[in-house]
Amino acid sequence: METQSLYKRLALHYLGAIKAGTLGAGDRMPSVRKLMAMHEVSLSTALQLCRHLEGQGWLEARPRSGYFVRHPQRIKLVPVEEPHSGTPIDPAQFVGIHERVSAIIAQGQRPIKFNLARATGAADLYPTVQLKNLAIRILRQRPQLLTKAIVMGGNKELKNALAKRALDYGISAAPDEVIVTCGCIEALNLALRAVAQAGDVIAVESPTFYGLLQVLESLGMKALEIPTSPQTGISIEALQLAMQTYDNIKAVVVVPHLQNPLGSIMPDQHKQRLVALCEEQHIPLIEDDSYGALIDTESAPTAAKHWDSTGNVIYCASLHKILAPGLRVGWMLAGRWQARISMLKYAQTRYNEELSQLVVAEFLQSSAYDRHLRRLRATLNVQRERTAEAIAAYFPAGTRLTVPHGGVSVWVEMPHQLSSKAVFDAALEHGILVSPGLLYSNSNRFNHFLRLNCGMHFTQELDDALRTLGNIIRQLAQAQLQSAA
Amino acid sequence: METQSLYKRLALHYLGAIKAGTLGAGDRMPSVRKLMAMHEVSLSTALQLCRHLEGQGWLEARPRSGYFVRHPQRIKLVPVEEPHSGTPIDPAQFVGIHERVSAIIAQGQRPIKFNLARATGAADLYPTVQLKNLAIRILRQRPQLLTKAIVMGGNKELKNALAKRALDYGISAAPDEVIVTCGCIEALNLALRAVAQAGDVIAVESPTFYGLLQVLESLGMKALEIPTSPQTGISIEALQLAMQTYDNIKAVVVVPHLQNPLGSIMPDQHKQRLVALCEEQHIPLIEDDSYGALIDTESAPTAAKHWDSTGNVIYCASLHKILAPGLRVGWMLAGRWQARISMLKYAQTRYNEELSQLVVAEFLQSSAYDRHLRRLRATLNVQRERTAEAIAAYFPAGTRLTVPHGGVSVWVEMPHQLSSKAVFDAALEHGILVSPGLLYSNSNRFNHFLRLNCGMHFTQELDDALRTLGNIIRQLAQAQLQSAA
Repeated sequence: METQSLYKRLALHYLGAIKAGTLGAGDRMPSVRKLMAMHEVSLSTALQLCRHLEGQGWLEARPRSGYFVRHPQRIKLVPVEEPHSGTPIDPAQFVGIHERVSAIIAQGQRPIKFNLARATGAADLYPTVQLKNLAIRILRQRPQLLTKAIVMGGNKELKNALAKRALDYGISAAPDEVIVTCGCIEALNLALRAVAQAGDVIAVESPTFYGLLQVLESLGMKALEIPTSPQTGISIEALQLAMQTYDNIKAVVVVPHLQNPLGSIMPDQHKQRLVALCEEQHIPLIEDDSYGALIDTESAPTAAKHWDSTGNVIYCASLHKILAPGLRVGWMLAGRWQARISMLKYAQTRYNEELSQLVVAEFLQSSAYDRHLRRLRATLNVQRERTAEAIAAYFPAGTRLTVPHGGVSVWVEMPHQLSSKAVFDAALEHGILVSPGLLYSNSNRFNHFLRLNCGMHFTQELDDALRTLGNIIRQLAQAQLQSAA
Repeated sequence: METQSLYKRLALHYLGAIKAGTLGAGDRMPSVRKLMAMHEVSLSTALQLCRHLEGQGWLEARPRSGYFVRHPQRIKLVPVEEPHSGTPIDPAQFVGIHERVSAIIAQGQRPIKFNLARATGAADLYPTVQLKNLAIRILRQRPQLLTKAIVMGGNKELKNALAKRALDYGISAAPDEVIVTCGCIEALNLALRAVAQAGDVIAVESPTFYGLLQVLESLGMKALEIPTSPQTGISIEALQLAMQTYDNIKAVVVVPHLQNPLGSIMPDQHKQRLVALCEEQHIPLIEDDSYGALIDTESAPTAAKHWDSTGNVIYCASLHKILAPGLRVGWMLAGRWQARISMLKYAQTRYNEELSQLVVAEFLQSSAYDRHLRRLRATLNVQRERTAEAIAAYFPAGTRLTVPHGGVSVWVEMPHQLSSKAVFDAALEHGILVSPGLLYSNSNRFNHFLRLNCGMHFTQELDDALRTLGNIIRQLAQAQLQSAA
């Protein structure tokens, strides 16, 4: 167990009660004395619990009266606009995003106070101590994993554990089908190399994460950006139309669950239609499911791969965002490209090191993994709500925001087509790093958007940072209006 | 320090005396009692020392007289034939080796008694306990390396340590120039992707290790196999001729130090000529230096990269063979392709995990690394000698063998153009895995060769296995002669 986890677990319990309405706005929180007795905890833990919820904005302290529940006022936010049937599709084009990404990343290499650009939670949202203890135990039991040549085929324990967990996503796969990779990014590389060549056209969501665009650029492939809904993901109609227009699409890449950057979740029916469409058109479907486990529900979402009966879907995932951002443990199920992708993986990086795989395998096999995910989802939920609340309060009128049902970030549309690069530069002056929308499309369709992380604990300082960011956007918007006038 | 390392260190001391002739064949080894007094060690350590040297064949026990030095009789072996100016060069061709390699590997997946096919030493030749202790200490000090997102640019400590070590090879590089990769194999992939495309011609040594051929196959590149001397490496003349014949060679890949499988070492003058030739012809030179540290000399060999003044040499290496076969820590210096290769690495697998890098960095910075290398080289030297001796004694007339000046394997030419696949199959029946020569050339020029590992402790059982292998070869050779008659 983590240090301090007791009060955090209690906090989640009370947060549930608040969200369910059991404790309403204005209700009095049980007194510290009562909390101590009810939960058999120390004074310090009971106080930590209350202060924690207070820090998150769910309680307010009234002098000499104790703690009272407050419902953070949920200001109505206008959701990000849906693409419509008239949304134009840019022609397929070679990708040239890397220099833009590198320049942004290089600029962010100065000391910063708030990194709102990352796509993982803060380290303390993950089970650091448990994983560390596991790693030490495994090193003691099997020190030769450091110095013994890795066996052909790679680590069996992890393949077993992943195949078992895949059942939760509706995927039935033999452990031997699992190919462990260096992060999901290697899985995407291998999938694309297996089904396409330099010069080929790949259909991707628009916006999409720049990591995928960089992969396409590095492989010399063309991106065909398909309009994608902030609510329901890639537009099946637009994709269908694109397939009629282009006869050389060699693959479709989608993130059906908590799409990056939109946070959209494809309804099951859409996933099913997408799988059928790709099969019908003989176009491989590459599914990136790195975030599925972060959806705000107890039951795991069903992967598109579930509806795949011909091996046309290549499923790629990773433990990077959901369990351990410091580890590079990705994996894939390669469908009918199993032999070719196994060959490519072997020729590219051989098998992964053993230690990380064993640590992850043991953790996945324990109930600690499920507990961790429940806690992580609940914590992120609160942080997302607080972030949305701050954006609603501090960002200027005309800001649009769809709060996704899970995950570590929100996608913000700024008013007046404001340049995300201008906001990035100005925010950096205040020690705040944001992820500018210009990175999420090769044709620069999303320059007036920002992706903001909500994987950090919501502190007063973070609230202040979001207020500063809101002021920056307001000032830039005003300056733009004035110069236009 | 390793358990039992004391007697091993003493064994190396006495081995030095034997090899220097201070203790000649037939001389009496100091008595166990005397060894105890001289070195202030226990009876058990003194006995272990003598039995260890006995097991390696350097001492023999005479009843009631003690231990006596024996010089393993060095039977004259005919070296493997040198390529000559008339050696034909096959046309550049697409590589189709993977299925052959996979079939061989799949066959070797049964329980075996002796794996003579691997290209690393046994795990106990590497500092398992030291590395494990380092890993545990680092995990305790920095547990968040498991759960904190990896910083852009990767681990600085390892880059510093590698840049410092590179000085020993005559390479002066800034730490920032070091790109850490998932093994040397990823470095080779990145280097080839940076300078060539599918369909391009790459000049390689012949024979060369099948890992490189698989990389070419997976990237759709053509191999042009250049005759290579078991003594001095790639033939500069043949390469020059090939460059005149083909105007589309996009890179030359060489292993200048302990070439795999030959074990050849390029003289400095050859390396210098090679660098100049490639530069003159505007053809990038990719140098794979995975084995350099295993050459039987105290002073490190000079890398070809040393003579590179224009950034035309891409230097690739790994800690896999020399420090920790269980880790996948490779690295490269990308010369004038620094920006492009950094991009490709980031797009392919992001940065490596931190733990292995920190473990390796700390070890490289300590004198333990130099001690480890000295011990490893001395042990391998003895094992190579014993293996050569056994081959000379047990293999049939007509066998040729060049014993390399370092490394973990020997390259054996069998008489009568015997099929290495037939030997592989027959040896497998006896639980012995060998690496057949058919894997080391796309045009199957080396089918009558075997690469045999000498990285395991030379035990009686291993001696028996080599005797069995010799008998297999003799019987197959006789059968072949009879069927031909």
